[in-house]
Amino acid sequence: MQEGKLLTFVQKLTQLLETHPSEKIIFSQGKKLLEELIAVDDWLPEALSKSHPDYYQQYLLYADPMNRFSVVSFVWGPNQKTPVHNHTVWGMIGQLRGQECGTNYYQQQDGSYQAGESSICHPGQVETVSPNTHDIHAVVNNSSDKTSISIHVYGGNIGRIERAVFDIKTGQQKQFISGYANAFTPNLWHTGT
Amino acid sequence: MQEGKLLTFVQKLTQLLETHPSEKIIFSQGKKLLEELIAVDDWLPEALSKSHPDYYQQYLLYADPMNRFSVVSFVWGPNQKTPVHNHTVWGMIGQLRGQECGTNYYQQQDGSYQAGESSICHPGQVETVSPNTHDIHAVVNNSSDKTSISIHVYGGNIGRIERAVFDIKTGQQKQFISGYANAFTPNLWHTGT
Ligand SMILES: [Fe+3]
Ligand SMILES: [Fe+3]
Ligand SMILES: [Mg+2]
Repeated sequence: MQEGKLLTFVQKLTQLLETHPSEKIIFSQGKKLLEELIAVDDWLPEALSKSHPDYYQQYLLYADPMNRFSVVSFVWGPNQKTPVHNHTVWGMIGQLRGQECGTNYYQQQDGSYQAGESSICHPGQVETVSPNTHDIHAVVNNSSDKTSISIHVYGGNIGRIERAVFDIKTGQQKQFISGYANAFTPNLWHTGT
Repeated sequence: MQEGKLLTFVQKLTQLLETHPSEKIIFSQGKKLLEELIAVDDWLPEALSKSHPDYYQQYLLYADPMNRFSVVSFVWGPNQKTPVHNHTVWGMIGQLRGQECGTNYYQQQDGSYQAGESSICHPGQVETVSPNTHDIHAVVNNSSDKTSISIHVYGGNIGRIERAVFDIKTGQQKQFISGYANAFTPNLWHTGT
């Protein structure tokens, strides 16, 4: 029985994290696994790929019960964007559909945040975030007429983690917990119709 | 944030199985966890509690990605029953709703199978099966007008395991793989509506 791509990814990442790898290894070996997952856009269930007219959606695809990692489908309608925010855990962002522009932000002497490098992610590409190096960013769907979808993998249960959005002028933080939009996740062992 | 009952069960059973416990410990400590899960019938999503007019349903609630265990909602319409079958892994059957009658079968000298002890399970009660002692049985919803639901926990991914049904007269086995009826499992971290 050939396993589904998402199950294969979850199994291989679980095995990798069992070895307590460094972030460097996660961002090389784990990144390769994510690249395989997003190489062909033929596996995401339709219910977990729907955009919302008013804000981007976060659908949990899988979470490790011991909170070692989570896999989330982020869906942006045309031009939808995030506020400037952090993650507090390592993250990998794999573009599945459409294109997104991510911009990192860095705090200045006066407490404000300044935009640093931006990069546009095309399908098949993976970006990273990390509290050790570059954890604060904003993401926007770079298209004015198409939905974009990226598959995010984090070193924790991202929908349950208390993290922050930033007022870039004042540097003020506001804590938030994102939650998830979906009450049901894919059955990784379902076959047939 | 108070975790849901199913998440709490999954986390505690994962932790227990990490210690590579004996079957005796699984059937004591693991059984206690299952008893807590089924003590109050207020948590099973409606989509995973629906009976089918023609045959009993098996809805996956959670499976360990490394196939150490699975949690399944079995739903029987009035008087629906299983054939005589085995499991090949340890199992615990917790009655959530209605009542089911389980009967163990034992192979005789001539190859046929003979019914042994029967027991009726009421809500809150947990029965076990094991290839080491009593793996072959049949289960029937003991009511002619009510649905019954039991929450099964197995030491493997039960919907993917090749196992057998038995012709009790001839002793002949027929291999089968049950699969699951549902394409989506509960998001254990979903909150709100
Ligand atoms: Fe982000
Ligand atoms: Fe059984
Ligand atoms: Mg371990």
